[in-house]
Amino acid sequence: MPLSEFALIDRYFRAVGVRADVRNGVGDDGAVLVPPPGEDLVAVVDTLVEGVHFPPASDPASIGHRALAVNLSDVAAMGATPAWALLALTLPRANESWLAAFARGFGDLARAHDVQLVGGDTTSGPLSITVQVLGFVPRGEALLRTGGRAGDSVFVTGTPGDAACGLSLLQGRESGRGSPPAMLEALRRRFLFPQPRSGIGVQLRGIASACIDVSDGLAGDLAKLAQAGGCGAEIDVALLPLSDALRACAGEDAAEQYALTGGEDYELCFTVPPARLGALRGWPCTAIGHLVEAPGVRLRRGHNVIEFSHSGFDHFGG
Amino acid sequence: MPLSEFALIDRYFRAVGVRADVRNGVGDDGAVLVPPPGEDLVAVVDTLVEGVHFPPASDPASIGHRALAVNLSDVAAMGATPAWALLALTLPRANESWLAAFARGFGDLARAHDVQLVGGDTTSGPLSITVQVLGFVPRGEALLRTGGRAGDSVFVTGTPGDAACGLSLLQGRESGRGSPPAMLEALRRRFLFPQPRSGIGVQLRGIASACIDVSDGLAGDLAKLAQAGGCGAEIDVALLPLSDALRACAGEDAAEQYALTGGEDYELCFTVPPARLGALRGWPCTAIGHLVEAPGVRLRRGHNVIEFSHSGFDHFGG
Repeated sequence: MPLSEFALIDRYFRAVGVRADVRNGVGDDGAVLVPPPGEDLVAVVDTLVEGVHFPPASDPASIGHRALAVNLSDVAAMGATPAWALLALTLPRANESWLAAFARGFGDLARAHDVQLVGGDTTSGPLSITVQVLGFVPRGEALLRTGGRAGDSVFVTGTPGDAACGLSLLQGRESGRGSPPAMLEALRRRFLFPQPRSGIGVQLRGIASACIDVSDGLAGDLAKLAQAGGCGAEIDVALLPLSDALRACAGEDAAEQYALTGGEDYELCFTVPPARLGALRGWPCTAIGHLVEAPGVRLRRGHNVIEFSHSGFDHFGG
Repeated sequence: MPLSEFALIDRYFRAVGVRADVRNGVGDDGAVLVPPPGEDLVAVVDTLVEGVHFPPASDPASIGHRALAVNLSDVAAMGATPAWALLALTLPRANESWLAAFARGFGDLARAHDVQLVGGDTTSGPLSITVQVLGFVPRGEALLRTGGRAGDSVFVTGTPGDAACGLSLLQGRESGRGSPPAMLEALRRRFLFPQPRSGIGVQLRGIASACIDVSDGLAGDLAKLAQAGGCGAEIDVALLPLSDALRACAGEDAAEQYALTGGEDYELCFTVPPARLGALRGWPCTAIGHLVEAPGVRLRRGHNVIEFSHSGFDHFGG
């Protein structure tokens, strides 16, 4: 869309956010930004592809929201404060009402997190959105995946599994029959409009030994965190913080599976050494297990312990 | 490609570039970077989509090279020095030999410009590549599009039109019959492996009043630069630096059209106030006209002056 591209970007994206540290935003070959002195820069990137990361013909406001949210979640997992975003939008044709809704979803979340859209690229092609977010963290204080050690407690924020169940409802793989409509709507919204954990990510600096955001499923993402620290992990299934809505919609067993392997949560999974556990009192997070010496992730249910594997969550419950 | 993604990224992209200012590169939720004190940060993003920005089944080494080159060209147009890149790669399936060639094309160019790949995302979907590059420029010295004024001379680097003619050769729209094979190969390489003007971009700081990179065609990109400065531009067609290869392959008239509207050059078009013209002596750039008060771009050929419009380069030559 060479001719309309500039007009479109102007109309819908130029005014997304306002920050004093932007010398030059959308509209030149590049953005010119003023990093705060003495801080490290954190850079993340994530792509959403139609039919892979969201169902075809999804609400464009949700697509715009999620395209930014998944990146803000990565920034939160680094313990950083987001500042600037760049948007690469590939879409089959310039549909104004679609763009207006997309920009509203993207822009509302950007403003809520004080993020300014400072650059972008619009191209023709199959619907796909790549967003880059830049943020800051005091020098040397970024939360990495690598710091976890055997003996650290494993925590997760919020109630994982809700978003995956919400997606199943949207796709008709869950019927939701018998559940209160408000609960089903809450689950669907957890998929459509995930809320990145920016506040808690920043607060975890100096407390968490390692942190990752839960995008591919709690057990799998914890496996990456444990491996990065050269250890393994054990999850006590009874400790999983399952929401009432998830339990009501999916039943207890499926709820556990959603929580462990569903993905799309954009919660934080992090580890805390024993000496710092007191700092977490009153936070919206739940201890679900420990890091251990032996590699791999094991699920403990009472006296049963099952080895977790990406390909084998049907072994689960045995 | 959830299971193989990490192995693939590890194998092909982890070692692209090495810089001391990267605290944490590929492999966590985000990269942690140390911006140089006292400099502005420049951020650019560009997407290439198969069938839109390059022909289907193109050489993957060329795709990898171009995905980075178009961004390095944007950084050069800002007068900035590139430092770090993030790569979002969407591809239909994980083909190892394709990935190896892509990474070689990307990596060779990255290393040549001292750029480190610090993050990325790999997803399944129609082939598309979005790259972001971050770079630096001394505080307040970025070259913007907005600084041009009537009376400034207009320059372009290199020999525009070659890349567009090279693409026509690749697509069979030009036969190249009668031209020396080495010339045709040179034109094709100008499309497949464009060399961003990083060095000259940095040197233009304090000299150029405005700068843009030529991606959509010289006349159209100059129109954007002139409009951003609140003025117009006049190009003297006789001054266009046409390469011998382009002339031999396309003939004089078509060569001018390629140079004015072909695109894909990734040369720099910039303006210089009269008082600073002396600074350019010996540089690989050519004066092709002036900025003028009246808006729009006009092409002068002897006594004929033709108004340029995006939709009407067939009016040209009249």
